[in-house]
Amino acid sequence: MVALLREDRLFPADEAGRKVAAALYETVKALPIVSPHGHTEPRWFAQNEPFPDPAHLIVVPDHYIFRMLVSQGVGLAELGVPSVDGSPVETDGRKIWRRFAEHYHLFRGTPTRLWLDHTFEKLFGLDVRLSAETADRSYDHIAEKLSRDEFRPRALYERFGVEVIATTESALDDLKHHRAIRDSGWSGRVVTTYRPDAVVDPDFAGFTDNLRKLGEITGCDTLGFAGYIEAHRRRRAFFREHGATATDHGHPTARTANLAPAEAAALYDRVKAGGASPEDRELFRAQMLTEMAKLSVEDGMVMQIHAGSFRNHSDGIFARFGRDKGFDIPQPTNYVAALKPLLDVAGLEKGFTLILFTLDETVYSRELAPLAGVYPCLRLGPPWWFFDSAEGMMRFRQTATETAGFYNTVGFNDDTRAFCSIPARHDVARRVDCAYLAGLVTTGRLDEDEAFEVAHDLTYRLAKEAYRL
Amino acid sequence: MVALLREDRLFPADEAGRKVAAALYETVKALPIVSPHGHTEPRWFAQNEPFPDPAHLIVVPDHYIFRMLVSQGVGLAELGVPSVDGSPVETDGRKIWRRFAEHYHLFRGTPTRLWLDHTFEKLFGLDVRLSAETADRSYDHIAEKLSRDEFRPRALYERFGVEVIATTESALDDLKHHRAIRDSGWSGRVVTTYRPDAVVDPDFAGFTDNLRKLGEITGCDTLGFAGYIEAHRRRRAFFREHGATATDHGHPTARTANLAPAEAAALYDRVKAGGASPEDRELFRAQMLTEMAKLSVEDGMVMQIHAGSFRNHSDGIFARFGRDKGFDIPQPTNYVAALKPLLDVAGLEKGFTLILFTLDETVYSRELAPLAGVYPCLRLGPPWWFFDSAEGMMRFRQTATETAGFYNTVGFNDDTRAFCSIPARHDVARRVDCAYLAGLVTTGRLDEDEAFEVAHDLTYRLAKEAYRL
Amino acid sequence: MVALLREDRLFPADEAGRKVAAALYETVKALPIVSPHGHTEPRWFAQNEPFPDPAHLIVVPDHYIFRMLVSQGVGLAELGVPSVDGSPVETDGRKIWRRFAEHYHLFRGTPTRLWLDHTFEKLFGLDVRLSAETADRSYDHIAEKLSRDEFRPRALYERFGVEVIATTESALDDLKHHRAIRDSGWSGRVVTTYRPDAVVDPDFAGFTDNLRKLGEITGCDTLGFAGYIEAHRRRRAFFREHGATATDHGHPTARTANLAPAEAAALYDRVKAGGASPEDRELFRAQMLTEMAKLSVEDGMVMQIHAGSFRNHSDGIFARFGRDKGFDIPQPTNYVAALKPLLDVAGLEKGFTLILFTLDETVYSRELAPLAGVYPCLRLGPPWWFFDSAEGMMRFRQTATETAGFYNTVGFNDDTRAFCSIPARHDVARRVDCAYLAGLVTTGRLDEDEAFEVAHDLTYRLAKEAYRL
Repeated sequence: MVALLREDRLFPADEAGRKVAAALYETVKALPIVSPHGHTEPRWFAQNEPFPDPAHLIVVPDHYIFRMLVSQGVGLAELGVPSVDGSPVETDGRKIWRRFAEHYHLFRGTPTRLWLDHTFEKLFGLDVRLSAETADRSYDHIAEKLSRDEFRPRALYERFGVEVIATTESALDDLKHHRAIRDSGWSGRVVTTYRPDAVVDPDFAGFTDNLRKLGEITGCDTLGFAGYIEAHRRRRAFFREHGATATDHGHPTARTANLAPAEAAALYDRVKAGGASPEDRELFRAQMLTEMAKLSVEDGMVMQIHAGSFRNHSDGIFARFGRDKGFDIPQPTNYVAALKPLLDVAGLEKGFTLILFTLDETVYSRELAPLAGVYPCLRLGPPWWFFDSAEGMMRFRQTATETAGFYNTVGFNDDTRAFCSIPARHDVARRVDCAYLAGLVTTGRLDEDEAFEVAHDLTYRLAKEAYRL
Repeated sequence: MVALLREDRLFPADEAGRKVAAALYETVKALPIVSPHGHTEPRWFAQNEPFPDPAHLIVVPDHYIFRMLVSQGVGLAELGVPSVDGSPVETDGRKIWRRFAEHYHLFRGTPTRLWLDHTFEKLFGLDVRLSAETADRSYDHIAEKLSRDEFRPRALYERFGVEVIATTESALDDLKHHRAIRDSGWSGRVVTTYRPDAVVDPDFAGFTDNLRKLGEITGCDTLGFAGYIEAHRRRRAFFREHGATATDHGHPTARTANLAPAEAAALYDRVKAGGASPEDRELFRAQMLTEMAKLSVEDGMVMQIHAGSFRNHSDGIFARFGRDKGFDIPQPTNYVAALKPLLDVAGLEKGFTLILFTLDETVYSRELAPLAGVYPCLRLGPPWWFFDSAEGMMRFRQTATETAGFYNTVGFNDDTRAFCSIPARHDVARRVDCAYLAGLVTTGRLDEDEAFEVAHDLTYRLAKEAYRL
Repeated sequence: MVALLREDRLFPADEAGRKVAAALYETVKALPIVSPHGHTEPRWFAQNEPFPDPAHLIVVPDHYIFRMLVSQGVGLAELGVPSVDGSPVETDGRKIWRRFAEHYHLFRGTPTRLWLDHTFEKLFGLDVRLSAETADRSYDHIAEKLSRDEFRPRALYERFGVEVIATTESALDDLKHHRAIRDSGWSGRVVTTYRPDAVVDPDFAGFTDNLRKLGEITGCDTLGFAGYIEAHRRRRAFFREHGATATDHGHPTARTANLAPAEAAALYDRVKAGGASPEDRELFRAQMLTEMAKLSVEDGMVMQIHAGSFRNHSDGIFARFGRDKGFDIPQPTNYVAALKPLLDVAGLEKGFTLILFTLDETVYSRELAPLAGVYPCLRLGPPWWFFDSAEGMMRFRQTATETAGFYNTVGFNDDTRAFCSIPARHDVARRVDCAYLAGLVTTGRLDEDEAFEVAHDLTYRLAKEAYRL
């Protein structure tokens, strides 16, 4: 069998560095996977049904894959991505797979290629590169594997060596799948995460209706600001009962605010019925980040801010296919002035943890590392989304470490709904961290015994501790 | 003869990478030069006269060279750069060359040094480093070469292995040199490019007068917006008759707009006579990018946007020497919000190609690669101007490839009026691409057979295909 | 004795590069230290008293150290950092040292770690890594050394091989320590630097009172703008009498202005009594940069602008501990539009030098190198503050050199109040420069003989020439 993957991939190019990296990697490659932030579906683990055909498992739901094909003229409909306007899309998995295979060369030099080859070789045992010629063979091969019991969700969880995995649910979710997992007696640990965008973002589809539902679910009067905040408090407790240790906030910017209570209440009155000005809507999101920080100080939930994405950039695609279709584009994001109101409220509070993510790499060295290198509550999340890649991870370490050190970072997040790619993603992170550490060792910036300790911390300990898992 | 250049220059520092890069380079180093964007003068090829003396060929017209000398206290006048206010400037080529030679150490570590040494060694056969001591000898040596027939423009075109070269002309140009080249029966392929800045930018010198001329040339009524757009349509057709496959737009920002027709016409009425507000002038440029995109959808011309330069930064230099004197400075440039109006109009149109250039490297990974990695019309132009350099090209690949891949890029542009430097510039690009690919191979991110294919694509195929040459 | 430091630290990872770097370093490692910008205290050299205990010498005054410990939950008070609100802080040096030692692992991968290990090994002769276990031993060891005469300030100045060191004093300082040093007959050269923030920044604590004092000291009528400018002129002369060759300006942004004289005078009237609008205060700072440039054209003092820090980000820390407590965070900084007014006034003046510093690394390649690569007055200061590090220095060379070359840079600044770290900091800069040059040599971008010359220039000549020392 030919290998799709080189054993020493992502290690430094020089011999000395390669040797140190390999030695470090040897000690972390088999550590359990801690996945504190991601988007797998709890239903999979609750119901443990077989996954669908290869295309509907691997291609159709993965925006990294379909956006690249779209960029070269393949339509979303041809790739089976569901439409929201009722227009027809391809449903034949084999046809979708062939289109994907014909365009596999587009992924040269991308992390997607590494993840896919890893999945093909290590999970499915394929030994030929995907191409138009090998499309059918690989489709049949993977389809056959997926029909087996050992490829069902719970079996894969175990085979992947997952110790704990966090999913992300809307504040309005009933968490029935998490309850079902818990009640099933299965030993896997799947925890939820409190994601309140639908009830804190006035631009979210159905915002006003969502507030009403939030009131119904919690028994709080969400017509007033105090009741609305109390509803959050109760939902957070409900999520904690289902394993949540963290909240997650996806905002267009990192802006925070700290209005006087009466002002905040008046602002809520203006936004709750819809139709508020753009500035009011942004200010409300900003205020709610600070409110969430205050609740985290109360209840100990770790707070995460994911900022900086311009969502649904193409009107045409949004009209036909809806959100999350690969047309979310990063923007310049400021954290320094933006976070000050929140940090003046909660930045020095014992026991409060705020993990920051960015899509603007320029802020690593300029803003995020200096902030995380002094505020006790702040930690830096790993490179996110477009930067969950070999170069992206290396740039993160090179630009953040000198100011924030290693211990203000929180290990790796796979942040994915592509379940099969989870081992590949963690493997890339482990290799890049080992390569970075090896570079420090061979250039006399870190002793080798320390590098082994740091490698373990970055792979395992920091994620568990930061997320309190 | 001593070499000025190392044979393995710009290859990776590690042995394994150097070997792979050398093997890749061996297969692309002699491929024909495709130069789809640049600023050579069609007159050279039409008239095929000998070039002037070494200083007036190499120093006086090259802003990379004279700006560096100015930065260390040498005056533009001392370097023979023509003034616009009638003040005297040096005219003696030998004196100018000596000043240049005395300061040659300033170029250490710059791409200019690599281009010049390449030109000196490979084109003129010099084997000593330029310095005050060798100034006269090299001047005489080059002057003697330039007097020979085999150093005339058409002979150099052929010696350089150029397959096709694009020049850039104002929308008002009569293209007589291009006609002369075509009518001469010479086998060289010199095509024009439609550059309408003079008639779309209200800040361009003589804008109102230019609109009048545009009307005269085309027989369109440029007093109204419809006639003005029709005039563009006709000029574009005229340029296509002279080989043009592309348009080029040099704007201070990437802002685009999509006004309703009546609003656009009213805006045109406000700007056409001069004296409009800065916001109106910027909005007009923005609207015109979208109008050009619509015309490209009609006529198939590839559109290029070069954005982000603060032109003529020094009032003193501009008053005495005019524009393009090395005082153009990059600025932060946003593409995400800026391009949305245009992309909502034309971003999903089949057959439309928009190539983006930037002087703000932070946008590669944050904005341009994510945009080009999903919109079917978008392609990334190569590193431009200050970034047409070994480090600049490497950073481009490192920050753009993981999200946009290779196939949303368009190969190399030399973008130069320094004709003799064209082989050197393409050689640098080929070497850096091979070095980057070698790094992917030695770190297990790309298979070697694929690297050979990509190297060929980046050197030759992508430029031809993207520019439809 | 075991070494804390590797002999070949910070050299390139590849063998060829390592060899070249080592050869280059061998020729510059022992060159005298020229320290043209920093924050050591002239009192030390005037009085030549022994330094205090290890903690109060090394930990308490060093914001790089205490900010990292604060980021992991240690309080400033526990580290002995003086409060401004009268609240108690730790005073026992040994206890502070233990807290520091227990957290020494936090500095893994940071420049602080390199500086400290260098100081511990080379200055104090320690051979074990600092940790909770070795805390007391190292404390006693260092304390014993500090009690010796050869560890007094003047002896260290000589041991470190300092040729000249600049301190920084407020425009209102009486410079008595500099006079005392000069009058003492000691051979060391300690010069002051004119830092007028207290009398040009309307946001500076006590601004109005400072203006009054400035009038008293100089005998000028600082109630009017002309007298105020004349007062600056006289203070600058006074500073020059105490060795100053440079001025330094720490501004939140790089904005400059060039108001008409009457406007400037009216603006002064609005700000001088306090209570002006934020825009007026910023405009006044902007105008004063241009006024300082005009005075530099007159008197030949080299001007430095340090821009881009958001000072005292945490209200809570500022209230309890005051300024300069590690809570200064960089921000995006624009130089292109910002500097134009000043450059239009003084940018082409013979003999004027303006050295620019940034905390926003994105401007190196986009703004600062293009500006310094053409304006004869401009020079680029070395990487500053958070970027005074191996990675920061390498990024500076990689992003600035191709456009600005080496000769528009000014060598190294240690910029520190941590006196014992000065040799370590200069050593890091020398090593990184040699590593960068070695990379150019091994990739064929610079000849080896030139690299030796440049290494010497970067280490010694450029700093002396740029600062006129």
